[in-house]
Amino acid sequence: MTTNATTTETEIALLGGTGEIGRALALRLGRDSDYALTIGSRDERKASEAAEDYRSRLRDRGVEPHLGAAENVDAAADADVVVLSIPPYYADETVETIAPGLDDETILVSPAVGMQRDEDGLHYHPPSAGSVIEMIADVAPDDVPVVGAFTNLSGERLADLDVEIETDTLLLGDDEDAKETVATIADSIRGLRPLDVGPLTNATEVEALTPLLINLARYNDDMENVCVTFH
Amino acid sequence: MTTNATTTETEIALLGGTGEIGRALALRLGRDSDYALTIGSRDERKASEAAEDYRSRLRDRGVEPHLGAAENVDAAADADVVVLSIPPYYADETVETIAPGLDDETILVSPAVGMQRDEDGLHYHPPSAGSVIEMIADVAPDDVPVVGAFTNLSGERLADLDVEIETDTLLLGDDEDAKETVATIADSIRGLRPLDVGPLTNATEVEALTPLLINLARYNDDMENVCVTFH
Repeated sequence: MTTNATTTETEIALLGGTGEIGRALALRLGRDSDYALTIGSRDERKASEAAEDYRSRLRDRGVEPHLGAAENVDAAADADVVVLSIPPYYADETVETIAPGLDDETILVSPAVGMQRDEDGLHYHPPSAGSVIEMIADVAPDDVPVVGAFTNLSGERLADLDVEIETDTLLLGDDEDAKETVATIADSIRGLRPLDVGPLTNATEVEALTPLLINLARYNDDMENVCVTFH
Repeated sequence: MTTNATTTETEIALLGGTGEIGRALALRLGRDSDYALTIGSRDERKASEAAEDYRSRLRDRGVEPHLGAAENVDAAADADVVVLSIPPYYADETVETIAPGLDDETILVSPAVGMQRDEDGLHYHPPSAGSVIEMIADVAPDDVPVVGAFTNLSGERLADLDVEIETDTLLLGDDEDAKETVATIADSIRGLRPLDVGPLTNATEVEALTPLLINLARYNDDMENVCVTFH
């Protein structure tokens, strides 16, 4: 067993960590960084099962991750960075539920995007706040910084640790320190490059990229789980 | 002097060909393909001056391009493919003006995007039709196919022929044959890969990518004239 090169005191909770993007982040961060990770779920037993599965997969690769499990509220209360890897329609409810346990040292991160399907493809369907990340910022306590990140990643591609990735992730946020912390976390994943794209008001165009990637996959046989690089 | 490898009977009019994206397409297609190109402008003299400039730049590189000039209406009437490389707020007016000269053998192509600036960056500002390309399709004669292409390209980067590009362009359209013709044109530009992203109803997410690229350039010092690759 080896431990990872990155050492940090930062604790990261992956709420909805049993889902696709949560699993992808748990496995990649578990392999590539030394962050203390907690898999959160509304159902503590599900969180524990997922954490055990991820630990087992990482141990098979010779890595002993710092990977625990808890119910969402407890996971968030103990964390420095809380990633809301949950569907957008649960986002505001979840933030309200965890809010009492958050303080101004906690950073909320969301990769969520509102989408709607029609016969031709997926379309961006923003909430009335303008974007999912701005909706989350509206619901979050005023002193808790909110950062958009991991928004356009293919959870399926990233969850397969045999795949070498070489892709970008776009960061949005009004709090520069919080954005910098999240950039450091993203950068700890091998092959993932964080790129600042400004404050939360620039989120619409970032969130709209996810349905575009899914449409590309639909209309091009060889483009499953599309990633994107800016250059 | 050499002539180019690609031979084709297709005639392409670049309306607004004196502008940034028009110049980029004229120079790249002039260098890399054998398409007959006509630079269009509302002012025939401006079109002629631009065409002379492009020819001179290409001759300096040992290429003798098929590159003429005409007023927009005449350029469109003689062309098989009409690229509307004009600002979006002129698009419907221009299509109405050229409409009498178009027939069902003509393909209309638009790279235009509606944008609005605020203090944080550029934002996608679609017309009421949902996207610029759907607005153009609404105004175009019913039998004239409309294709979205070259939408997210940096005219400035492409107009510099010393720059080797390696980027993608997304194609939208309801007429598969027309889209295929435009894909062949795009593919004739070295380093440019056309990717189908479905019918015109999928345009919003494609057009929204342009302000995102401009915002990325603003917030990252080393990312001027950003291009994008999907993989």
